[in-house]
Amino acid sequence: MSVFELRQIGRVESPLTVRAAAPRQPDEGAPEAWLVFDEDVRIALQDVAAGNEYVLLTWLHAADRSTLTVHPRGDFDRPEQGVFTTRAPDRPNPIGLHRVRVVEVDGLRLRVDALEALDATPILDLKPVIGGVADR
Amino acid sequence: MSVFELRQIGRVESPLTVRAAAPRQPDEGAPEAWLVFDEDVRIALQDVAAGNEYVLLTWLHAADRSTLTVHPRGDFDRPEQGVFTTRAPDRPNPIGLHRVRVVEVDGLRLRVDALEALDATPILDLKPVIGGVADR
Repeated sequence: MSVFELRQIGRVESPLTVRAAAPRQPDEGAPEAWLVFDEDVRIALQDVAAGNEYVLLTWLHAADRSTLTVHPRGDFDRPEQGVFTTRAPDRPNPIGLHRVRVVEVDGLRLRVDALEALDATPILDLKPVIGGVADR
Repeated sequence: MSVFELRQIGRVESPLTVRAAAPRQPDEGAPEAWLVFDEDVRIALQDVAAGNEYVLLTWLHAADRSTLTVHPRGDFDRPEQGVFTTRAPDRPNPIGLHRVRVVEVDGLRLRVDALEALDATPILDLKPVIGGVADR
């Protein structure tokens, strides 16, 4: 089995510090947050602009990677589902996808309007949103 | 700097074998492909159904991880852009996001209708598409 090495390129700064209290989706009361990038990726950020939407990829560091089924949304009245049909953070490769709108750019720091990721979540990548049939 | 270990959970079977010949987006002539998962994630697949759309995460194994700027779509007449505002595979953490529609489920094998990933691309994760403001 092949393994691949991800490297952290930044971190989330958020008032959210406890997983149990975090919203499950950004439209469920997620707060503003800052994405703070490392100096060595500065040039890759150069065209990021306030007002635009991006897909943020994070490493869900609090996840349990051995989990293959979950009760959706943690509701034990709902039957267990395979994790590939849920957005549960617990999964073999816990990569978070978050659609964010950048509202301020300050050098290596990007302020986004709503993010459900916890404080100190490692950042892996940022990609533009593509409309239509593209790979969102 | 923190590093994290991804593990391959499956692979793409596709007629696409050469990066230079691969379409850049699925609506640019991408062929059908099979997603072939490993036995040890079988239970996580149990609720995947034909007709549904998912976000497939792959490891873009042919990417150059030292690239921070690119000419969009490989067009040298266009100015270089930071990779975080492009979907270029060359980037620090080359994770591919692909929106796919499953058209057939055969045990550990899922046939999808259009995929621009190369043959033998490692699979990392599969997530349901969420509408609206969610984290696509």
